[in-house]
Amino acid sequence: MTDLWPDVRPEAARRLMAAAVAAFGERGYHATTTRDIATAAGMSPAALYVHFPSKAAVLSAISRSGHERALSMVTAAASGPGDAAARMRVLVAEFVAWHARRHQVARIVQYELNALPQPDYDAVVALRRETDSVVRALIEEGVETGVFTTPDVRAASRAVLSLGIDVARWYTPAAKPDPETLGAEYAGLVLAMLGAA
Amino acid sequence: MTDLWPDVRPEAARRLMAAAVAAFGERGYHATTTRDIATAAGMSPAALYVHFPSKAAVLSAISRSGHERALSMVTAAASGPGDAAARMRVLVAEFVAWHARRHQVARIVQYELNALPQPDYDAVVALRRETDSVVRALIEEGVETGVFTTPDVRAASRAVLSLGIDVARWYTPAAKPDPETLGAEYAGLVLAMLGAA
Repeated sequence: MTDLWPDVRPEAARRLMAAAVAAFGERGYHATTTRDIATAAGMSPAALYVHFPSKAAVLSAISRSGHERALSMVTAAASGPGDAAARMRVLVAEFVAWHARRHQVARIVQYELNALPQPDYDAVVALRRETDSVVRALIEEGVETGVFTTPDVRAASRAVLSLGIDVARWYTPAAKPDPETLGAEYAGLVLAMLGAA
Repeated sequence: MTDLWPDVRPEAARRLMAAAVAAFGERGYHATTTRDIATAAGMSPAALYVHFPSKAAVLSAISRSGHERALSMVTAAASGPGDAAARMRVLVAEFVAWHARRHQVARIVQYELNALPQPDYDAVVALRRETDSVVRALIEEGVETGVFTTPDVRAASRAVLSLGIDVARWYTPAAKPDPETLGAEYAGLVLAMLGAA
């Protein structure tokens, strides 16, 4: 799982983040101690503090990186080639596949928002707003160019993101279909929902 | 919140369930103690044990009742008047509005499945399967009668339930729109998704 954060240095910090994702997922954030995280990463609690000042700081690093990844994925898809429908198809397929493949991280990122310290919470809320507005702008463009016919852009963009995010709740490695197939299926459902021809 | 469980007797048990929903929502299930629940309900820990043998038993009571409510709501809507589209409209509107109005309970019910003791977990999984199959049968009926055109009934029924369930994650009392308006909006989106005329 440490390959999730290629930009995080040194490797010990990455290992701590991966151990925290597993521990938070198993016991919940509140019931996990910094000792649990350090032990799972094969380190002493003191060694954890070299990299993160607190348990909340580990959560913040995981959450900010997850939200940055989602925003850059959505932005790249929305500014790709083709009409609004073609770009929405790529956007949903990738967003859904990512939430399936990285469901453990995505659960932490989604369900522990309220445990973030205020400055990190504010930063994450800003990233979420930006992600929302990219999706909304793409649907608006589709409606304006006659590619989509949905009457309520706001509700539709909320539903598109919600469908992708909720995949992290129910997806398990044993689940059928695989992340890519699921992404393609959901992309088809979303295009129908938006009234694409 | 005690009006959520009109069938639970005596009133003290209802009060404990309501206190548990608030405590689990705030701290997470694992970090909540039976003492936290009893205190929030204005009772002693010993008094809690009169009604529930354990913290897990309180969670089970909340979860089973929530899943039973969802199944009976979905079953009633699916067997109501009108064609498959009319019934699906009612089903989604009610399912979505319920997840918005009761988002605190719904979060516990959805996110703490793995904390249930085995027999309760099995019972809840059976209730979820039945709910899934009611929705799937309604979509199948709609496809057979030419009311829906969705090519993948399995993916579509998963998406319909997922959209409703995820409302509990993001809905807050301050959120616009109100539960009934949201239900109506989502019903329209789902009918489009299923390819209803």
